[in-house]
Amino acid sequence: MSQTHEISPRSGVAFLLDAGQELTVIDPRGGQVADLLAISRSDIREKISSGRTLDYAEKIYLTTGNKLYSNRSNVMLEIVADTVGRHDFLLTPCSEATFRLCYDNEPPHQGCHGNLAYALAPFGVADDDIPVAFNCFMNVPVDGVTGGFSVQPPLSKAGDSIRFRAEMDLIIGLTACSAPASNGGSFKPIHYRIEN
Amino acid sequence: MSQTHEISPRSGVAFLLDAGQELTVIDPRGGQVADLLAISRSDIREKISSGRTLDYAEKIYLTTGNKLYSNRSNVMLEIVADTVGRHDFLLTPCSEATFRLCYDNEPPHQGCHGNLAYALAPFGVADDDIPVAFNCFMNVPVDGVTGGFSVQPPLSKAGDSIRFRAEMDLIIGLTACSAPASNGGSFKPIHYRIEN
Repeated sequence: MSQTHEISPRSGVAFLLDAGQELTVIDPRGGQVADLLAISRSDIREKISSGRTLDYAEKIYLTTGNKLYSNRSNVMLEIVADTVGRHDFLLTPCSEATFRLCYDNEPPHQGCHGNLAYALAPFGVADDDIPVAFNCFMNVPVDGVTGGFSVQPPLSKAGDSIRFRAEMDLIIGLTACSAPASNGGSFKPIHYRIEN
Repeated sequence: MSQTHEISPRSGVAFLLDAGQELTVIDPRGGQVADLLAISRSDIREKISSGRTLDYAEKIYLTTGNKLYSNRSNVMLEIVADTVGRHDFLLTPCSEATFRLCYDNEPPHQGCHGNLAYALAPFGVADDDIPVAFNCFMNVPVDGVTGGFSVQPPLSKAGDSIRFRAEMDLIIGLTACSAPASNGGSFKPIHYRIEN
């Protein structure tokens, strides 16, 4: 049986995921976002692209069956199971600037961006190269008429999960998100599991 | 009086825009998209970011008064006039892969991505570093319930325009878009003007 790993609240990790392996991201308590990045292990200049992925999917809310593409239009991951059905792929990981610009009453935090930059640095990924993440469980309803949106608490309940199959050898960055609005105002852990 | 420059159908250019200068992008015939990229001249690793911009604007349809942010959360451009009010900031520039995956009945074309990569290469910008562009006049209505979207003809009429003020010294990439659906099925030029 595969091991379940815990990401502590407001932190992030990076790890390898081989082509064919499956990654399950679990929200153990409910209402917690996990930002996910994927970078090609054979060339770190190839990385997950929201713009390519949304263009090919023709929708902004992705779920089971949708493929996550790289900036070179190769499939990096496919969503193979999803008990929630609402994730975000529009917004960048929260950062020190997010806190400065959007949460000026909150103590500043390096956010998911800082956590991902720290975790990915040993793999040679630079801070400036962190793109829009696939934000598991993040709930950003968009008003199709005005284009306005708001960041709402996740729809995920305790034990909900999303599972991805890797289509190439990857470096994965994954967080337990640090932004108040994204997580219903409280910061909880994220679990993940890798299976062959 | 400032000079009006023409970008030929299905091509692209790159040029410098100084802090304080204004760039007007004009659709001279109507129904034509122009993909716009902005890169900091002092450090090309700083570039326009859809994810930062949308996050701070809290809407997907940007217009007069909205600011376009970099990946470092600095303001690069502000939209100071807009006679259309509908542009896209979700999708990457069309590319050879776009034609392969989305237009398999069309002759392949290097698309805006290829045109931008060619135009920006002399400035040291690599193909892999081309992010989601601000797609002037591109009309991508999103269904807020399902998240589905479609690429519709632009709402711009002949002579419509959008004007930006530079907030830092920039390298600008700009195209007359090459994708059939984005431009109502025909390929037209784009005009632009720079004013101090």
